[in-house]
Amino acid sequence: MRFPNLLVVISGPSGVGKGTLVSRYMEKHPESYLSISLTTRQPRPYEICGKDYYFVSKAEFQRYIESQRLLEWAEVFGDLYGTPRDPVEEALQSGKDAILEIDVQGGLRVKNCVPEAVLIFVLPPTREELRKRLMKRGTENPSQLQHRLEVAEIEFKYISYYDYYLINDVLDVAVADLEKIVFAEKHRVSRVRHPLLEGGDPLVRP
Amino acid sequence: MRFPNLLVVISGPSGVGKGTLVSRYMEKHPESYLSISLTTRQPRPYEICGKDYYFVSKAEFQRYIESQRLLEWAEVFGDLYGTPRDPVEEALQSGKDAILEIDVQGGLRVKNCVPEAVLIFVLPPTREELRKRLMKRGTENPSQLQHRLEVAEIEFKYISYYDYYLINDVLDVAVADLEKIVFAEKHRVSRVRHPLLEGGDPLVRP
Repeated sequence: MRFPNLLVVISGPSGVGKGTLVSRYMEKHPESYLSISLTTRQPRPYEICGKDYYFVSKAEFQRYIESQRLLEWAEVFGDLYGTPRDPVEEALQSGKDAILEIDVQGGLRVKNCVPEAVLIFVLPPTREELRKRLMKRGTENPSQLQHRLEVAEIEFKYISYYDYYLINDVLDVAVADLEKIVFAEKHRVSRVRHPLLEGGDPLVRP
Repeated sequence: MRFPNLLVVISGPSGVGKGTLVSRYMEKHPESYLSISLTTRQPRPYEICGKDYYFVSKAEFQRYIESQRLLEWAEVFGDLYGTPRDPVEEALQSGKDAILEIDVQGGLRVKNCVPEAVLIFVLPPTREELRKRLMKRGTENPSQLQHRLEVAEIEFKYISYYDYYLINDVLDVAVADLEKIVFAEKHRVSRVRHPLLEGGDPLVRP
């Protein structure tokens, strides 16, 4: 299977701002498809079902697993998260890029079944900045916050499985950086055929 | 051997404008090192020895080959071209990117001895545009021009060995596109260590 368009996985520690980064990217690239994850977690006050996540019961999540309708799923901080398979496959088949904002475990599972996926790890500029962002978000109590920082350290160790890293310091810069990586991947010779080369098959090694 | 900085090879058919592209890139990135090739070809009226090429005799070129002072060399349109090894290695060791504007044969030889090299193939927007550019340059007679176009067709078949392709339509766009590819390659996890991760070794697979 070869995609000229991309399956892009964006991961990074809780609080790094990957959700905001992805939202801003999608505003600039409405031609891409943003996957909406299924989760058993309770919605945060500002979250909308069908936009941020599909909030479902554990029983319903279980039915998705059993009927193999999830591309990947994982337990994160005690809640289940999964990526519905059909809309991602439909987006890719219709020539769109599919963007998945998922955790590191999910990212590795996607890479396993779709080796052409592009995995991007979003880093904070510093550890201290990550702590500040989590505190500012104010959705965790101190012990939950500490736990998220410890999990972040574990996640950092998995960066070696990712293709690229990005620093999310200034949001607009990080969005532009993400665009550069997407551009570069779309110009990898192994992904594309250029009409200039229609005479022979340039992608078959001579 | 792992370079955090890059060895970038830029190739493409005669007349595609890779020289202009590379010059403009270097104006914007004087921190990079541009390799100056050795050649036995006669200088064109506007070319300066030590800036565009080192113009040398066949005997001197032969001495470079024998003393293994060339990273790669090849015969192109009856003339010899080669990349002096020492300045490229010095640039890389001092943390600079090294940019090589060389032909396809040379590019493949560099990739063989430096697998981390990033190979970029510059394409014209159309075949017709390539012919126009060669005619406009006016340095070849009609039969030489025809020969260059035939060689271009052969070169296109080697694009599969390259990492990226770029279309040189509008020069400033092509320069920006080259910058995007360089940015992306510098953010490949396999190339770098980020200070955030100094606690463990994130690049050793857990």
